[in-house]
Amino acid sequence: MSKFYAIIVGAGSGTGASVALRFAKSYSVVLLARKSTNYQPIVDEIRAAGGSAFGYTADAADPASVDTAFSQIDKDLKGVQLAAAVYNANAGFAYKPFLDLKPEDLDTSLSTATNGLFYFAQKAIPRLLAAVPSSPHPPSLIVTGATASIRGSAKFLTFAAGKFAQRGITQSLAREFGPQGVHVALAIIDGGIDTPWGKDRVVNNGVEDGKISPEAIAENYWHLHTQHRSAFTHELDIRPYVEKF
Amino acid sequence: MSKFYAIIVGAGSGTGASVALRFAKSYSVVLLARKSTNYQPIVDEIRAAGGSAFGYTADAADPASVDTAFSQIDKDLKGVQLAAAVYNANAGFAYKPFLDLKPEDLDTSLSTATNGLFYFAQKAIPRLLAAVPSSPHPPSLIVTGATASIRGSAKFLTFAAGKFAQRGITQSLAREFGPQGVHVALAIIDGGIDTPWGKDRVVNNGVEDGKISPEAIAENYWHLHTQHRSAFTHELDIRPYVEKF
Amino acid sequence: MSKFYAIIVGAGSGTGASVALRFAKSYSVVLLARKSTNYQPIVDEIRAAGGSAFGYTADAADPASVDTAFSQIDKDLKGVQLAAAVYNANAGFAYKPFLDLKPEDLDTSLSTATNGLFYFAQKAIPRLLAAVPSSPHPPSLIVTGATASIRGSAKFLTFAAGKFAQRGITQSLAREFGPQGVHVALAIIDGGIDTPWGKDRVVNNGVEDGKISPEAIAENYWHLHTQHRSAFTHELDIRPYVEKF
Amino acid sequence: MSKFYAIIVGAGSGTGASVALRFAKSYSVVLLARKSTNYQPIVDEIRAAGGSAFGYTADAADPASVDTAFSQIDKDLKGVQLAAAVYNANAGFAYKPFLDLKPEDLDTSLSTATNGLFYFAQKAIPRLLAAVPSSPHPPSLIVTGATASIRGSAKFLTFAAGKFAQRGITQSLAREFGPQGVHVALAIIDGGIDTPWGKDRVVNNGVEDGKISPEAIAENYWHLHTQHRSAFTHELDIRPYVEKF
Repeated sequence: MSKFYAIIVGAGSGTGASVALRFAKSYSVVLLARKSTNYQPIVDEIRAAGGSAFGYTADAADPASVDTAFSQIDKDLKGVQLAAAVYNANAGFAYKPFLDLKPEDLDTSLSTATNGLFYFAQKAIPRLLAAVPSSPHPPSLIVTGATASIRGSAKFLTFAAGKFAQRGITQSLAREFGPQGVHVALAIIDGGIDTPWGKDRVVNNGVEDGKISPEAIAENYWHLHTQHRSAFTHELDIRPYVEKF
Repeated sequence: MSKFYAIIVGAGSGTGASVALRFAKSYSVVLLARKSTNYQPIVDEIRAAGGSAFGYTADAADPASVDTAFSQIDKDLKGVQLAAAVYNANAGFAYKPFLDLKPEDLDTSLSTATNGLFYFAQKAIPRLLAAVPSSPHPPSLIVTGATASIRGSAKFLTFAAGKFAQRGITQSLAREFGPQGVHVALAIIDGGIDTPWGKDRVVNNGVEDGKISPEAIAENYWHLHTQHRSAFTHELDIRPYVEKF
Repeated sequence: MSKFYAIIVGAGSGTGASVALRFAKSYSVVLLARKSTNYQPIVDEIRAAGGSAFGYTADAADPASVDTAFSQIDKDLKGVQLAAAVYNANAGFAYKPFLDLKPEDLDTSLSTATNGLFYFAQKAIPRLLAAVPSSPHPPSLIVTGATASIRGSAKFLTFAAGKFAQRGITQSLAREFGPQGVHVALAIIDGGIDTPWGKDRVVNNGVEDGKISPEAIAENYWHLHTQHRSAFTHELDIRPYVEKF
Repeated sequence: MSKFYAIIVGAGSGTGASVALRFAKSYSVVLLARKSTNYQPIVDEIRAAGGSAFGYTADAADPASVDTAFSQIDKDLKGVQLAAAVYNANAGFAYKPFLDLKPEDLDTSLSTATNGLFYFAQKAIPRLLAAVPSSPHPPSLIVTGATASIRGSAKFLTFAAGKFAQRGITQSLAREFGPQGVHVALAIIDGGIDTPWGKDRVVNNGVEDGKISPEAIAENYWHLHTQHRSAFTHELDIRPYVEKF
């Protein structure tokens, strides 16, 4: 087992899985997801390839659940340090006109994108700080953003609320912890992702590579993690070559 | 009484009071605040000057409370239409290093800046839409933002979370309801405000007009409200001439 | 004649004419344009309404021409102080794919949007600074920007080059001269303008008020000029209610 | 010799040299600089390490000079295709109060940052397009920006003018040529660079890694170049961990 681990929250998505596989080339990998069926196939795949992986069931929106998971991780990975934390949790959101939305729709978006990031960062940041002297690359917290992180639009209101807030948190963390050696970055994913379960969704007229490859996202996250501390990127836009922007 | 009214949430602040007084020159004014002591002096001042004003006690962060207030307003101002809605509610926020924050600190910021705006807009937007054909100026929803609406920073994390989310909501509303004739705008107040209770706070080295005049903010809000629908401004920065930015 | 004057460069456009008429309500107005046929009708209209107006032929892109014009203005308006300067000069631009552009196409855009603003500001700023103690409103330099000030796009490359540079200059001037009491602002006009000669151009599906009213732009410029110095706006977006943004 | 080459304009700087060395690991490298003493040491270093490098004397601000250089390159590297073009040319700029600037100061900044990029892109883009079907990575045009690309400030006016315009051009190119398979990106270098000749300049209080490592910039450029076309980044901020932003 590596002396360092990466933790990925929201490991069940295409992005989460690819990021886990990419970071597993160098680190032990810890996967958090709401259901074990989300992380287990990835854990198995990493282990089959000779890597080290651990899955935990946790609800990112529930501080107690996150707390329990980290307590268990600290026991299971005793002596292993946190080199990279990736917050990739996503709640679905209500794609509706504003006047059809319920207060609960807003809560759902905020609880995962905003509160969940807050809880997770409170657990991750002290562990990342502790790894600053020893980590092979600057300990990193990478957050998965979206177009809605920088642009509100009709029917995306609750999503934008959560993603904007997430960006505000990420910027605040970057400015507080960058000078302490922790690299906090937001990846603004501006386009449809080519997930296994979304093969039928037509994006950019179905042109080849018109959806973002999760493996390509993972390479970008690894690049962010391995940036020299004299050359940190804080916000990285990622979009297909054919995307309008 | 005017055939139109403006509603101001967060009427107890320097900004809220000045906005109420400004809009009272043309409209009846409805003030919402958590405590009657916040709005009563302004109600009295407007009435003394021959204007029309009404105060309601409501907690912007509580949907039931907002709902009750609007039901009462609909009765009290029967036949009067909503021409302008100003969301100026502010919760205090915890000015602390991230690792000293509690989840409740985040909730406090979000509940007023984000959830409160959502509840308020759900009440205000249908009333503003109804006024489109008759209102002397495009019915308007104006939101009071801050530097933290566009910039996260250390010790401002919870404030930034709420204010970023508020901006995401405001942009989404602007894009959905602009084409229907409702003007939704965010005022980004980038500087200290010259409030009665903050006279001792030194800003910009105490230089004259180094704090933002609440009356000047109110003039800006009135300008936003009176913009022709062919020339809407959606985000307006406001800062003192001496402010670094 | 007023003790103060406003100067408008690019007075022949719909915007320039409306701004001149608006500012003429309070100030003497000086109009600069490449051809006297551009400014003379506006000069006549202002004078017919009892106002004070002066036209000068000058090429904004030519420093010697600008220099000559200001020398003449100083003589003709001896003792009158400059309260507001509006830079509204526009060269046409080559709406072409990049590989069809010539270096001269870039020069044309830069010479008016960028170099012209530079020359004009070098003449206007000292005169605005001189008026700080006496001007009824903070002496102002207002620049007419466009969507291309903040967004480059295919076929708009030369326009974007000039407009981006103009924004960089305007921001730099705002930060240098704001603390000295001069208000420098950029108006980002994001939409088609309803000019007399563009009546046939269909914008926003021809919907009513789908083009920006030049009079509405002029009201916005007057508002910028009359902002209290504790509450300056530095960038103002202006777009029709139906505009996608 | 590789079947592909990278061209770097402004090769004499710390950034240009490091980028050349990095790209020389995979490609032949062509260096353009105003003086052969700027590129020759890098050419020698690359050759000594077994790589392939060619230097050309050219003035980026002079279209004829750029034209001549490309004609010669086409002969010298017949059959070799252009995979990456890096525009890193920098003119000095006049760090002065606005009223002390001369029109020539603006011209100097624009001629290199803006006109020079235009000329260079007109030569590079057709060659990059030709390489789309064969290049191992999406053919790329990478432009070196600065803080002044996104922020104007006092004493940086001419620099901001050129860098803003450069950004407008880069965005326009990205939107026109991205869908054709060419990756156009702007790197926003926000901090002092650790160049050999600037060792004595104190940045960020002299803290270790408080200046940006040119090698780290080069790694970022290589990452941009090797991004999958489904996951292009168009603007990349780069700054030291201790930089205020």
